[in-house]
Amino acid sequence: MATVGESGEVVREATIPTEPERGFASGISRITATVTRLLADSGWSAGELRGIGLGCAGPVDPAQGTILNPHTLPGWMGGDIVTPLRRAFGCPVRLENDADMALMGECQAGAGRGFDPVVLTFGTGIGGAALVRGQVLRGAAGEHPDMGHVPVDPRGPRCYCGTNGCFESLASGAALAAAAAAHGLGDGRQLFARAARHEPAAEGILRDALSAVARATWTIVHALLPERLILGGGMMDEHYETFAAAANEAIAGATLAPKGRVTVARAALGNRAGVLGAASAVLKRPGRE
Amino acid sequence: MATVGESGEVVREATIPTEPERGFASGISRITATVTRLLADSGWSAGELRGIGLGCAGPVDPAQGTILNPHTLPGWMGGDIVTPLRRAFGCPVRLENDADMALMGECQAGAGRGFDPVVLTFGTGIGGAALVRGQVLRGAAGEHPDMGHVPVDPRGPRCYCGTNGCFESLASGAALAAAAAAHGLGDGRQLFARAARHEPAAEGILRDALSAVARATWTIVHALLPERLILGGGMMDEHYETFAAAANEAIAGATLAPKGRVTVARAALGNRAGVLGAASAVLKRPGRE
Repeated sequence: MATVGESGEVVREATIPTEPERGFASGISRITATVTRLLADSGWSAGELRGIGLGCAGPVDPAQGTILNPHTLPGWMGGDIVTPLRRAFGCPVRLENDADMALMGECQAGAGRGFDPVVLTFGTGIGGAALVRGQVLRGAAGEHPDMGHVPVDPRGPRCYCGTNGCFESLASGAALAAAAAAHGLGDGRQLFARAARHEPAAEGILRDALSAVARATWTIVHALLPERLILGGGMMDEHYETFAAAANEAIAGATLAPKGRVTVARAALGNRAGVLGAASAVLKRPGRE
Repeated sequence: MATVGESGEVVREATIPTEPERGFASGISRITATVTRLLADSGWSAGELRGIGLGCAGPVDPAQGTILNPHTLPGWMGGDIVTPLRRAFGCPVRLENDADMALMGECQAGAGRGFDPVVLTFGTGIGGAALVRGQVLRGAAGEHPDMGHVPVDPRGPRCYCGTNGCFESLASGAALAAAAAAHGLGDGRQLFARAARHEPAAEGILRDALSAVARATWTIVHALLPERLILGGGMMDEHYETFAAAANEAIAGATLAPKGRVTVARAALGNRAGVLGAASAVLKRPGRE
């Protein structure tokens, strides 16, 4: 969470654990307390607050302000997060998918600036979001297409999304960590270290994940043909070059895509992409949604 | 080809074979002669012509008016089709991907009317096109994302697009006909007849193709989340219910998509979708691009 000034500068930041198992009321109360503390630390009154933007792991219903994610936020399912915050702070509150908020941040102040269309993928699970003609791509019912769940390999593991072998189930940080643990190779960090030492089991797991990255990149290129594909999330801090090489190899092989016009970049804003995007969503700056 | 009046009515129609092997100059000359004949048959002078819209198997460069398709139009590669027609008829000429033109037709006067986003897939090869916020989705370099080439199964056959097991290579009319021929089962029509008689080899080929349709539908739902997925092309005349069932089963299983909000429909305009979309592109009717 952060207070963000009108020109997009972060004033104060705070991080709290989500802990959905403590229930929705606890979540609202902890978020409200943290907003109150951030305002005080920033020297702002609630009256000065132009709005609150919220990025949440999807699905969410942006129109109703409700959380529809039984998968990673089970205790919050169906919860209206917008109304209590609007009442507490007396300002507009806007809820969006977290990937959309991060995308808006990167397109305003990071690796997406000046490109259109843009696709962002990121995360421990894999979130994805697309900017088309300056606006976040919305699908049926105004919802967010969950790009992390495009299918990659029908023989892959089952995912909560309902299919086998989707992008997230094969190449997310969580998937790599699970594969490493299942093979007695430690955690995700150890997996990369072992692969760097050319241990065959670790190299095999990583090769499969990079093959999934290449296939998912192929999907994104043929479904949306972005000018820029931004790779974000914690794994990219240390392993961006590895993942970008897999994506670029797929792009180079796509005979139907215009040569040299689909570019790959590392997310530039890290965890700040989400808060900057959320701030821009309530400040409604020109040129972007 | 057709002459289309201002309110979208088809006045006269003509069909000529493409025959790209006769070279680009021959193509231009045959198209010019057919336009001239259609104008005469319609009782129109060239001066009355508001414009010419052209839908062409992609890739095309709509900005330059050039054909960039070495795969199915090898003799026309790099050809500027817009300039000679503009000179011959003294009116604006607009070139687009044929799937985009068919999509515009269906969204104006067919199965896509009132829905947004819309995805259309169709054809002997598989073309695809998307409407987002009332406009055709354009990607890098203003080009068209080639949705027929989203990957489905990494173990599938090699395609000219550069990957293995893409949607077109597994489920197009051409792919089904090739699979039928390879198994000594006759042509595509005979394949469907044999599958209807429960011949195991034919049933197996069709089952694999429908599984590819389901996977590609899954991809489209998670990349674009359309309100409406339109299935078009010759195979849908007789086999729409079979293909729609596969698509609907995939949609029903997608836990992250809003329930009941992604609908499937048969293309309503047949071969006329392309000419009506091409006409709308030069008439620039309100509400759609």
